[in-house]
Amino acid sequence: MPKYVFTYFNGKGLGEPSRLLLAFGGEGFEDHRVAEKDWPKYQPKTPFGQMPMLEFDGKTYAQSLSIARYLGKKYGLAGDSLEDALEIDQNVDLINDLRSKGAIAHYEEDEAVKKTKYAEFNKNDFPNLLKNLNDIITKNNGHIALGKLTWGDFVFAGMFDYIKNLLVVPDLEKKYPAFQKVVDNVYSIPKVKAYADAVGPTEF
Amino acid sequence: MPKYVFTYFNGKGLGEPSRLLLAFGGEGFEDHRVAEKDWPKYQPKTPFGQMPMLEFDGKTYAQSLSIARYLGKKYGLAGDSLEDALEIDQNVDLINDLRSKGAIAHYEEDEAVKKTKYAEFNKNDFPNLLKNLNDIITKNNGHIALGKLTWGDFVFAGMFDYIKNLLVVPDLEKKYPAFQKVVDNVYSIPKVKAYADAVGPTEF
Repeated sequence: MPKYVFTYFNGKGLGEPSRLLLAFGGEGFEDHRVAEKDWPKYQPKTPFGQMPMLEFDGKTYAQSLSIARYLGKKYGLAGDSLEDALEIDQNVDLINDLRSKGAIAHYEEDEAVKKTKYAEFNKNDFPNLLKNLNDIITKNNGHIALGKLTWGDFVFAGMFDYIKNLLVVPDLEKKYPAFQKVVDNVYSIPKVKAYADAVGPTEF
Repeated sequence: MPKYVFTYFNGKGLGEPSRLLLAFGGEGFEDHRVAEKDWPKYQPKTPFGQMPMLEFDGKTYAQSLSIARYLGKKYGLAGDSLEDALEIDQNVDLINDLRSKGAIAHYEEDEAVKKTKYAEFNKNDFPNLLKNLNDIITKNNGHIALGKLTWGDFVFAGMFDYIKNLLVVPDLEKKYPAFQKVVDNVYSIPKVKAYADAVGPTEF
């Protein structure tokens, strides 16, 4: 039985960063995927009614970024000092600002409100956040922080398809050319590549 | 000149957790407060257009929770292991889920949409998140994690007034009696009390 059991929907969404980190760590993990249709009956069995979850040593943890940060530290991807860790955390929170802003518009059920939200966010929020992030990645030579590979890169690479789907910004990669570099950097790591190849094409 | 300069609006909002941690740390800090009316002209001077910010050693950092986590580690409030840190991070993220859900409704400018959002969130999201958090605090003897004082307590205590203002849940403290314990635990720490007394009553 593998040390870690990681549970999330089938898609990449909030779960893929930790799956990529677990693949990188190479200790083996159970990649437990819950179909959307089974979630309502599965949800009450979870500690906080949320996914993703990471189980090990008899305990179950939730929260995608907390889990990714834990795995990042575990696998030597969290810098060498408290200040290094702060820089990674800060830039990951910027990625998360972008994701959560996109989610507000994407998951809006009222079509008229949804249209208004996208119009509003496309005016300032998305361009500002995307530009800040692109600048950071450019300054860090294709990485999220510290000018080198950290768990922040795994967060960005794992969530990129999901974020693109939430934002619906045309030609995103052309406008912000640094983004693809982070994705390529992470997915070209042999253990990560092996995992991604084995899973095959996955919905965002 | 103090080692740290912490910059935020005058209110508690997202800034108070780190102010309380800086007070606890006792190294002294410049408590720089920007009036709402000055923010538009101040914003372009900030690295990411966001507050709070923490400046030290010639660098400026953003993101409220990242800063609070850094200070928590600095001042011995982050547990003794990677798993301890994960538990704190996870429960802080739950506090943040509550805050960000409340913010979606509170900052909605369309009054009709705002009313719908509050009605929707009051049905499931708020009660579920509040109950989960109350259960966690009860299980941890009046703390956010690890059954003892951590930086998670400072996040909750510092943001409690702000969260209450975002959520507008009547009798919140009566329904979830564990919450006030965290606040009281933090604000009764002599250095924190001295800071709060010196600042005096502050808007949420």
